Amino acid sequence: MSAATAPFDGLILGASLATLDAASGYGEVNDGALAWRDGVLAFVGPRSQLPDDARALAREVIDADGWITPGLVDCHTHLVFAGDRAREFELRLQGATYEEIARAGGGIVSTVRATREADETELLRQSLPRARALLADGATTLEIKSGYGLDFANERKMLRVARQLGEALGITVRTTYLAAHALPPEFRDRADDYIAAVCEWLPPLHREGLVDAVDAFCEGIGFSPAQTRRVFETARALGLPVKLHADQLSDLGSAALAAEFDGLSADHVEHTSDDGVRAMAQHGTVAVLLPGAFHVLRETKLPPLQAFREHGVPMAVATDCNPGTSPLLSLRQAMQLASTHFRLTPEEALRGTTVHAARALGLRDRGVLRVGMRADFVHWDIRHPSELCYWLDGRLARQVVAGGRTL
Amino acid sequence: MSAATAPFDGLILGASLATLDAASGYGEVNDGALAWRDGVLAFVGPRSQLPDDARALAREVIDADGWITPGLVDCHTHLVFAGDRAREFELRLQGATYEEIARAGGGIVSTVRATREADETELLRQSLPRARALLADGATTLEIKSGYGLDFANERKMLRVARQLGEALGITVRTTYLAAHALPPEFRDRADDYIAAVCEWLPPLHREGLVDAVDAFCEGIGFSPAQTRRVFETARALGLPVKLHADQLSDLGSAALAAEFDGLSADHVEHTSDDGVRAMAQHGTVAVLLPGAFHVLRETKLPPLQAFREHGVPMAVATDCNPGTSPLLSLRQAMQLASTHFRLTPEEALRGTTVHAARALGLRDRGVLRVGMRADFVHWDIRHPSELCYWLDGRLARQVVAGGRTL
Ligand SMILES: [Zn+2]
Ligand SMILES: [Zn+2]
Repeated sequence: MSAATAPFDGLILGASLATLDAASGYGEVNDGALAWRDGVLAFVGPRSQLPDDARALAREVIDADGWITPGLVDCHTHLVFAGDRAREFELRLQGATYEEIARAGGGIVSTVRATREADETELLRQSLPRARALLADGATTLEIKSGYGLDFANERKMLRVARQLGEALGITVRTTYLAAHALPPEFRDRADDYIAAVCEWLPPLHREGLVDAVDAFCEGIGFSPAQTRRVFETARALGLPVKLHADQLSDLGSAALAAEFDGLSADHVEHTSDDGVRAMAQHGTVAVLLPGAFHVLRETKLPPLQAFREHGVPMAVATDCNPGTSPLLSLRQAMQLASTHFRLTPEEALRGTTVHAARALGLRDRGVLRVGMRADFVHWDIRHPSELCYWLDGRLARQVVAGGRTL
Repeated sequence: MSAATAPFDGLILGASLATLDAASGYGEVNDGALAWRDGVLAFVGPRSQLPDDARALAREVIDADGWITPGLVDCHTHLVFAGDRAREFELRLQGATYEEIARAGGGIVSTVRATREADETELLRQSLPRARALLADGATTLEIKSGYGLDFANERKMLRVARQLGEALGITVRTTYLAAHALPPEFRDRADDYIAAVCEWLPPLHREGLVDAVDAFCEGIGFSPAQTRRVFETARALGLPVKLHADQLSDLGSAALAAEFDGLSADHVEHTSDDGVRAMAQHGTVAVLLPGAFHVLRETKLPPLQAFREHGVPMAVATDCNPGTSPLLSLRQAMQLASTHFRLTPEEALRGTTVHAARALGLRDRGVLRVGMRADFVHWDIRHPSELCYWLDGRLARQVVAGGRTL
């Protein structure tokens, strides 16, 4: 503590803190004090332990009630895209068949078409309100995947827009290269050729600083484990970490594949086997649960939650924000859905959007409230952290702060 | 049209309108114009039909895109209460039994205790943020039930606070007397005596102008059809309309009972039989669907949706906002849940929170966009009304207007 020598940029007094800075429990501090300086947390603890001169030396002091948690981390989104698929959603509820929807121009190809047609300015304009909605409900870090461009120029455009979003909003955006998301029409029946192109595009995008991690959609209707492996080997050669859309609709052993490459995370994982869980535990691969898609698709096969707990696989929770299967614009809502559908406890859900989500992105400077961590936090109008999962929707965030700056 | 003689208070040009002013479809008007004067809609139609001098004569003109719908009507809430039940929610997810939760002070009795302890000021203070959240996502009319007081003074306090909410927020609040919600501890094993008291308290509360409708919880774990009938007869003698928590957990013929009393609505109705549906159709009783409770309780028994459609029973959708089974703070989210769980089309869900919800409250001056109706409307940042059901959470409402006043 150097409060005596350098003033705090800000100091909040009286709120309770859920630091999450312990192996279990909320890390609760009542009548807490939280201070930051130069974008980093400079004091976290009970008000009673704050040095006497701290209040006088802070540039801004807020007396408050409510609770402060770490800023939420959305570790799996596809939020950069153009158009939406609300009409397709409506057609489906009106009883249209998949063929009719395809004929009406629905499906992922419609998002690819709209995203290719939009220039960077338009793509940014359409994506900003979605990012703002996530921030308004407590997110301070976003992962954003490419995967609707499916050619070099358009994948690059998506990744550039993701970076621009981070700059425009003053938050950290982690980009993930997901060209291996779907087979573009021009590569029909030539999936291996497409994977070769995906592997070719990666090095130049990486050189431009546009790629923080590499992902693929490993599934019967996506790419095979062998094709995924080629993409992952290219990533490894560049020193880029991987993550994977794994075992969502069937068990292809993809979670184990992600683990074999020391993957940051295996995501969805509804059908992951016990072997997959063990491999994840061994390699420290996080399980990213995506209850929004589970909800929208009305799935019934639960991820192996008890096995994750028993093997100590950290569980993260993310929105999977995307136009087809999870048009979900709130991490708190993802927590609510994780509690309802997966029976996660509110503490598990909160760890899932903070500590474990940060880990799923390889970020070690956030996810808990601790001196030296980034000053990313949310001040909530609640009486207990369990309320974050309990309320459906609502406006609970009083103040959302990223790097010491109120969003 | 008297635009030539009296100016509009406001005029919005260019947005699309979903008037809902037709038996089916959205009543879509592209490049629309919407004007209001003295809190009432004064022009609704295509911009091309607006008189030439209209623009010059409007006090305020907004050029806009997006869509305008009628203001949403939440026709079933219990939003006036003190405390919350988030800890109970957490205990349940941690595996606690009902006995353990009861021992920890959970269940409806905890809400009754907290609500009795709070004075009017405190009850208003705690309820306002919930009402504000509903308004922020498009609600302009709220129904609010009593039912956590369970004695004369505390039921009266709840109804008074409901009225105060309407005044504080500048919206219509319709109050419903629901003393027959649960048996208070002091009447244990004396349900008939309690019903006698409920019937005694009603006339003085009605004389004070605190009651717009009367409701009961008719269920094995609530009150019997015979007890409900006594309450309804008291209401009828006072000329008060009734509505009913009907057939949620079992089929007691309660929807038919509500219909027999020309009830405005039968609510929940998961277990309503074909006879019940026919009785509702015959008496014009609206079916109020409450997908929030269905979601939170993870129910599986669907209401007889196809029978409602076939018999022409209007279906409304409401939040059921309450601390125990539906801590739901958005009507749009209720629409989303109605689409996901009940497969309502987006148009059915929107009618369910506008036209049919207004009817479930006996309000004939709102629910569609039409000249002469109240100027209650919402201006949304969307490209198609189906988006209102499609997005989970999000911040879609650009402007929410009640009685011509922006909330
Ligand atoms: Zn995804
Ligand atoms: Zn209710």
